[in-house]
Amino acid sequence: MSAEVATERLERLSLNQATTQHWTLAEAIDGCARAGIGWIGPWRHRVAERPLAETVRQLRSTGLRVSSLCRGGFFPAPSAAERQARLDDNRRALDEAAELGTDVLVLVCGPAPDRDLDAARAVVFDGIAALLPYAAERGVHLAIEPLHPMFAGDRSVVVTLGQANALAERLASPWVGVAVDVYHVWWDPAVYEEIARARGRILGFHLSDWLVPPPDHLLGRGLMGDGVIQLRRLREAVEAAGYSGPIEVEIFNQRIWDTPGDEVLQTLKQRYLEHC
Amino acid sequence: MSAEVATERLERLSLNQATTQHWTLAEAIDGCARAGIGWIGPWRHRVAERPLAETVRQLRSTGLRVSSLCRGGFFPAPSAAERQARLDDNRRALDEAAELGTDVLVLVCGPAPDRDLDAARAVVFDGIAALLPYAAERGVHLAIEPLHPMFAGDRSVVVTLGQANALAERLASPWVGVAVDVYHVWWDPAVYEEIARARGRILGFHLSDWLVPPPDHLLGRGLMGDGVIQLRRLREAVEAAGYSGPIEVEIFNQRIWDTPGDEVLQTLKQRYLEHC
Repeated sequence: MSAEVATERLERLSLNQATTQHWTLAEAIDGCARAGIGWIGPWRHRVAERPLAETVRQLRSTGLRVSSLCRGGFFPAPSAAERQARLDDNRRALDEAAELGTDVLVLVCGPAPDRDLDAARAVVFDGIAALLPYAAERGVHLAIEPLHPMFAGDRSVVVTLGQANALAERLASPWVGVAVDVYHVWWDPAVYEEIARARGRILGFHLSDWLVPPPDHLLGRGLMGDGVIQLRRLREAVEAAGYSGPIEVEIFNQRIWDTPGDEVLQTLKQRYLEHC
Repeated sequence: MSAEVATERLERLSLNQATTQHWTLAEAIDGCARAGIGWIGPWRHRVAERPLAETVRQLRSTGLRVSSLCRGGFFPAPSAAERQARLDDNRRALDEAAELGTDVLVLVCGPAPDRDLDAARAVVFDGIAALLPYAAERGVHLAIEPLHPMFAGDRSVVVTLGQANALAERLASPWVGVAVDVYHVWWDPAVYEEIARARGRILGFHLSDWLVPPPDHLLGRGLMGDGVIQLRRLREAVEAAGYSGPIEVEIFNQRIWDTPGDEVLQTLKQRYLEHC
């Protein structure tokens, strides 16, 4: 394809910072600018490494936009005090998102503190409901991200897009929606139906691939094209459901983390054009 | 509890042979007899290690009963010839099940040979449908076992109990049903609803536990009580749905495999009484 077509097709590509784990946020912003990638999805622990105003200045000077902030959530906790502390932290995350100029905070909802999934799921609902007024005030949407069921014990009791849709429907606010990450939802027999159901509520779309067999519980994600996910079909489905926002590449993989960042970004662009 | 009550409560316990990977089938049968376990669920590669008639004789002399045979399935394949070969192999599995005196063949349905999950799921439906007349002839039920979605790429395109129920409903035969393994279904927000929906079709119930975080993709299952699954609640749900058959303990775990079999069986009995 011509360089012009490639540039146009890359317009929605966003680097989720988790893909270049060893870069600071400043390095990742500069790396995106060098690679001609127009969006970035930062993580809070990296945002916290320097004054927010410096990051905002760097974003402005490079023209880079923030697709979403990762992450809020983790609502269930053993005590009321701890649950309250987590809500407070989510409000700080909403402040940060607004400062960074993104209107999306991604929620990883958290595991149960004990074996009671029903109770934890109720806490998640209440937690998101409690945040909504402040989200509206800050102009930041809450994107419920269902995680793959293999993270049900350690990361999230929200494990299907159907469940995220049902939560969003019950919460019935323009400030809540869902994030669709192909790695988390690709296996689901109901995924296309649920993507269609999410129309008007899709706040993010994340790419990676599912390697066979998965090399690791946490760091087993692959580059697009190296696995078995029908990436293009999923992208077309979220677009048919009305999503036209940035597309984040989010790959937790030790081998990619050990590769120089600039090289990773070139590979991402190429794989994105070829497979997505 | 009294020894008598414990004995009564252990009546439904079955050793799935995968739990004692290093034992031959002969060793596993003798081990169960020594431990006072009345049921066993053998695996075909172990069954194949000696003439079937010898196993049948040993089962008769020990009084051990076979809860199910593991496993048939693996329907999707790249070529028509290979799909046919797999159907033929499933028919041999039905023969073996009948010879061993069990009326349940567990089906692990297989992964897609490419990225096309829809096509593979259609092949699974057609494969089970093709086996049903022979299953009826041999008097052996086909138990569709949904696997955890983390096995969607390498083991099974059937990943939820809802999907297994829908398959069984469409197949509409008294010779097809579902197997409920807690490890594969515990995370599912719809699991209790789907267990109730499976009433009259539950052909097996398997126990282990979900460790946090999972130590391994294939060998990460835990002993009952070491993980986060609500085991008793799930057992009560399958019983409320009418299942009163044997309960297999099936644990793929290297550490358990490295423990002497007799010791493993004593631990299983104790954990079963304490947690299930």
